[in-house]
Amino acid sequence: MIGVFDSGLGGLTVLKSLLNTFPDEDFIYLGDTARLPYGSKSGDTIRKYGEQILKFLSSHWQCKALVIACNSASAQFPESTWQGIPLFNVIRPGVENALAATTNKHIGIMATRATINARAYEIALQQRDPNLQISSQACPLLVPLAEEGWVDDPITNLVVYRYLQPLIRDGVDTLIMGCTHYPILEASIRKAVGPAVGLIESGAALAAELGVFLKTQSTASTKTEGAIHLRLTDSNPQSEALARRLLAPFQVESLEWVDLTAEAR
Amino acid sequence: MIGVFDSGLGGLTVLKSLLNTFPDEDFIYLGDTARLPYGSKSGDTIRKYGEQILKFLSSHWQCKALVIACNSASAQFPESTWQGIPLFNVIRPGVENALAATTNKHIGIMATRATINARAYEIALQQRDPNLQISSQACPLLVPLAEEGWVDDPITNLVVYRYLQPLIRDGVDTLIMGCTHYPILEASIRKAVGPAVGLIESGAALAAELGVFLKTQSTASTKTEGAIHLRLTDSNPQSEALARRLLAPFQVESLEWVDLTAEAR
Repeated sequence: MIGVFDSGLGGLTVLKSLLNTFPDEDFIYLGDTARLPYGSKSGDTIRKYGEQILKFLSSHWQCKALVIACNSASAQFPESTWQGIPLFNVIRPGVENALAATTNKHIGIMATRATINARAYEIALQQRDPNLQISSQACPLLVPLAEEGWVDDPITNLVVYRYLQPLIRDGVDTLIMGCTHYPILEASIRKAVGPAVGLIESGAALAAELGVFLKTQSTASTKTEGAIHLRLTDSNPQSEALARRLLAPFQVESLEWVDLTAEAR
Repeated sequence: MIGVFDSGLGGLTVLKSLLNTFPDEDFIYLGDTARLPYGSKSGDTIRKYGEQILKFLSSHWQCKALVIACNSASAQFPESTWQGIPLFNVIRPGVENALAATTNKHIGIMATRATINARAYEIALQQRDPNLQISSQACPLLVPLAEEGWVDDPITNLVVYRYLQPLIRDGVDTLIMGCTHYPILEASIRKAVGPAVGLIESGAALAAELGVFLKTQSTASTKTEGAIHLRLTDSNPQSEALARRLLAPFQVESLEWVDLTAEAR
């Protein structure tokens, strides 16, 4: 069993990357839909919510690995284990892929305000190569635009262009899409940055890193088909339908609502 | 003491209306900044959060009245008392003002998705006049745009126009701004609807209703200057500075961070 969490449903794009790579593993996914978005909250609050969720996942499910699919939460959990269980976040693999992709050593980061304020990508990049040039941009409107479904829309194109124009002018050749929602807006992002800039999607990078871990640890599943369990903190029929649609063709084994406030007592 | 709550800081526009009308009353304001926004959440979750907050306000402070400044939360609390304390919400006064303003009996409602889904304004309007025509529009992008500070901005104008064009085409002569953030975008809203449509701001309407209550109950304060206490659930220096700025020239007596999860235990 592998535990995955996100502030909402955006992390299902990461879970799908993992399912494509590890179709025979069991997954438990918690989406904190009652308290989303994390991207506008303080680091302390995000850390507190994340600890509640990691405690829930590790105490109710026998997880051999825990995965933080949310960039804003990843920025608050730099550690590589949680109470003895290997802990993966989307920052490290995103950083590695960006370093492999850049040729002019100038990397751009687009993310939520919480992720930008935490400087998680920036610090990790500079630790790996102190000579890098880094340009960052908080993009608070992109998650609401993706959730409104205004995809490849003239208004979305304008908003994305306004956010990314300074990074392009600065000369980045590689751009980290530092939020699980951003791949949904990839058409607009590609229009704004042009064909030459490399776009880094953290979900795919994370799946590759997790694969290496599972192989070296010999803990890969030997079953032929895994089960997907979803837990959401807000009981909303629309999110449940959306979750099933995002994961298709993979089938959801169980989908339930949990109250983390009651769990915390 | 009068207790006021909102999902975040938007309700401070309502508190300011109340302060202008009742400068000698004491106010305790709770902004649930750790869990905002409410507008995208399910009714059940909003009701649960609201109950936690009303319990906090009524158990820690001697409130003679409780005010729900948030439209999304107001839509989940139609009752007029909470454990014996008079409870005010922004729906009823907004409805009364809209009924007084309309001449063609066609009223528009712009609000968050939660408020529109709860049909709170629609039901209250139809109870008062079954012959009204009502046109509703959920506007999920407007709160993020206001919080991004893109006020009277070409992109905001485009978004507001796209949301409101169907209501104007339908022929509404009065429009309820059913979210505390919307008055911040009034310049864009006015551009979209033209000069002839009446705009209803619930905060001002609520202050008038509360004034009638305080006079008839003879519970109006006899002090010369009231105190303002603020409690926020997310400890974010930016929100604290913003809160003080929004309330100026009124001075904040105390501003503290509270953990409602711990309170609930």
